[in-house]
Amino acid sequence: MNRHSSFDPVTDDIITALKKAVGKENVQTDAEALELCASDETEDLAFQPEVVASPETAEGVCRILRIAWENNIPVTPRGGGTGLSGGALPVCGGIVLSTMKLNRILEIDQKNLMAVVEPGVITQEFQEEVEKVGLFYPPDPASRGSCFLGGNLAECAGGPRAVKYGVTKDYVTGVEAVMPDGTLIHHGGKLLKNVTGYNLTQLIIGSEGTLAVITKIYLKLLPLPRYRQTLLIPFASLEASAQTVPAIMNAGIVPSALELMERDAVKMAEKHLSTTFPSSDAAAHLLIEIDGNDISTIEKASEQVCEIALKEGATDVLLADTSAKQQELWDLRRALGEAVKSVSIYKEEDTVVPRYNLVPLLLGVKEISKRYGITTVCYGHAGDGNLHVNILKMDMSETEWTDNLDPAIEEIFKLTVSLGGMISGEHGIGYVQRKYLPLAISETELDLMKRLKQVFDKKGILNPSKIFP
Amino acid sequence: MNRHSSFDPVTDDIITALKKAVGKENVQTDAEALELCASDETEDLAFQPEVVASPETAEGVCRILRIAWENNIPVTPRGGGTGLSGGALPVCGGIVLSTMKLNRILEIDQKNLMAVVEPGVITQEFQEEVEKVGLFYPPDPASRGSCFLGGNLAECAGGPRAVKYGVTKDYVTGVEAVMPDGTLIHHGGKLLKNVTGYNLTQLIIGSEGTLAVITKIYLKLLPLPRYRQTLLIPFASLEASAQTVPAIMNAGIVPSALELMERDAVKMAEKHLSTTFPSSDAAAHLLIEIDGNDISTIEKASEQVCEIALKEGATDVLLADTSAKQQELWDLRRALGEAVKSVSIYKEEDTVVPRYNLVPLLLGVKEISKRYGITTVCYGHAGDGNLHVNILKMDMSETEWTDNLDPAIEEIFKLTVSLGGMISGEHGIGYVQRKYLPLAISETELDLMKRLKQVFDKKGILNPSKIFP
Repeated sequence: MNRHSSFDPVTDDIITALKKAVGKENVQTDAEALELCASDETEDLAFQPEVVASPETAEGVCRILRIAWENNIPVTPRGGGTGLSGGALPVCGGIVLSTMKLNRILEIDQKNLMAVVEPGVITQEFQEEVEKVGLFYPPDPASRGSCFLGGNLAECAGGPRAVKYGVTKDYVTGVEAVMPDGTLIHHGGKLLKNVTGYNLTQLIIGSEGTLAVITKIYLKLLPLPRYRQTLLIPFASLEASAQTVPAIMNAGIVPSALELMERDAVKMAEKHLSTTFPSSDAAAHLLIEIDGNDISTIEKASEQVCEIALKEGATDVLLADTSAKQQELWDLRRALGEAVKSVSIYKEEDTVVPRYNLVPLLLGVKEISKRYGITTVCYGHAGDGNLHVNILKMDMSETEWTDNLDPAIEEIFKLTVSLGGMISGEHGIGYVQRKYLPLAISETELDLMKRLKQVFDKKGILNPSKIFP
Repeated sequence: MNRHSSFDPVTDDIITALKKAVGKENVQTDAEALELCASDETEDLAFQPEVVASPETAEGVCRILRIAWENNIPVTPRGGGTGLSGGALPVCGGIVLSTMKLNRILEIDQKNLMAVVEPGVITQEFQEEVEKVGLFYPPDPASRGSCFLGGNLAECAGGPRAVKYGVTKDYVTGVEAVMPDGTLIHHGGKLLKNVTGYNLTQLIIGSEGTLAVITKIYLKLLPLPRYRQTLLIPFASLEASAQTVPAIMNAGIVPSALELMERDAVKMAEKHLSTTFPSSDAAAHLLIEIDGNDISTIEKASEQVCEIALKEGATDVLLADTSAKQQELWDLRRALGEAVKSVSIYKEEDTVVPRYNLVPLLLGVKEISKRYGITTVCYGHAGDGNLHVNILKMDMSETEWTDNLDPAIEEIFKLTVSLGGMISGEHGIGYVQRKYLPLAISETELDLMKRLKQVFDKKGILNPSKIFP
């Protein structure tokens, strides 16, 4: 920990104070607990914290932060640990503040179509609870089975439904959070409109746990759409699949999902799931979902999508009209990340461009891959212009990998930015992308962001070594 | 200007510098120009600026702010001057920076369903331009015929369609803006997802021109819904109309507008427009619009709305199925503000509560009015829980008005907050509501907001005496 000598170590006295603050049972220093919180889903990175604290109340979060603040100890907030940019990695040691015990759904308010939750609620569990009463929480990250809503806010998680329904920030109408010095703050509520002071909620969302620890969340809900249809559409070329995306949108159809999957990704997912899919030899697939309350409207839109896709070069159209068949397709889609990563050492990039620039981005990524001799497997939320580029080491030598990886990523990001894009759409900058941030954000804005960080955290104890290069 | 002695006056040298910076023709000091920029639509307030500058480029905005920054001169950004909380009032004198010449629609990008505009574009003109190519920009403030998009961002304007489509912040994917010291910053772009650093765009939206002057805006567009139907539904009691609102939403119907108008408001609008409306004697009306791409779905939803309304106590249902009839109803609705204000000296409040709390808010406002002997006329966006409460002086004596107004407003705001609400939904705090802000926001959050302001504007020259009490 020499390089982080700006912080102080977690002493026995600190451990005692933490135990007093949140209860003995909520403070862990055993090897297993530290090990568990050393990693998230980002590559094979691991950084041991010195202690893991899991408060059960917002007041507990305040107490932990007060101790950390007074004793100059770094604190890394941790949700479900499913992050892909290393946001939950305790890279400076210190305290991991886990929200796993702040996991209550406080209220599903059917009268106001709102919910109030704690940050440790698992996204899928929340979705299922609201669906039981005919309501709908659209944000739907691939990790929804284990990620936490608090983490979704921290990274402004998106997922496939963003193309129609927007991302996490579009559903959060208020937060309660704790600042690094232990001060509890509150903003917004069950309100669809609010211009009463600056929008602290929106500043905290997407700040990757660097400004405050979220302890309560107000979420907007929608009525659950009654019907959905899912289409799997194979294409003979990646280009044809990508250019079908704007063609659909420009016909006035807004699907509830519009996903693109490259052949290699589908093949890897087939293997990973020990299953086979029809047409998995196609160069690329679009996975399209259309939802709504009127089945005939959905059917009409589906037909129109099929026509457009066939005109753009689709080789077939497969309709999943039962929920079992739909589930199968979405299991495939959600397994892509894990499948691709199980094959090889990898780096994942989370590029986002204006939707129509998906074709040049894809073709450019392939050209860069070829030039550097690297393997890239692409999939993602084509409807949002959000392309996940997985760079796989495969059988490259260690030297080749080390020499080529960084310049290849730089080129991919430069291309992304030149196409009007940004280097993270929904995974965040976190730990692993921060060195690339200056490719996307100029010194002026970086300086402004750093000064905003200082307003919340002048000691820099909260999630240090994240976002900023 | 004694009370604002912290600023320096605009000298002849400053005028010369401003003229050099943005051209002689864009700097005005004549009485007429100063008079024009002394007021917005907030009550009868007027504060003379010392000079009006109307730059034609972002670089011009930078130059003006640099001069102001170096010379310690207050700058009040001004859009269409339609604000209702005094956000554009130059209460400390100095420079009014008008965006009226930054009025180009730079791009309507049909391929990406995005637009890029300057802040001085009139909202309605922009809406009409995008509709010409089959696209849709939903935010729809009542002043859309003269308000500017830049002002819409500054106040996070909403309007009737927010119930289905959200408010201004939900359509802004990026901004270019100038900080008070003249530094140009840029955030976001034509991007539907972006977690590349803190969300500066969302921090600037709703900051009421106190953090930066917006010079370019990236806006998300939707495909234009093909059909709409409008219903005017009279009720024999205000309570019955208000409780119909959540009943509709809870049936899974999301209208594109759900407006409530009290009898007095309708009567005043009739007089103002020299027209008569059927059923204008009803205690209250709901004005409901349903839009979509499938006429049969809309018709089904309309029928369902009618059934619910009749069950809740509607006395009739009037359908406007032609665009002429729809126009007539919306003209009535948009005229309410002006109509009510033409009757008497007034104060307008912009309360917002969780939707289901509209009934207790309305009844409470009426009870408070009675107790203080004041006249209140209410209308607003019931679907969002956003109620505009107009307090009219009518024939009250000056003393009675002065003595009762303030305590009555305080009670209304305290009631609003006790119902989980906030004191501004879409008009902003600006100049006239700032003394009430502590009723809604605690010292802790106020202090945090002030420190955020300082990051942008440590000299406090940009839109001083706004928001903060």
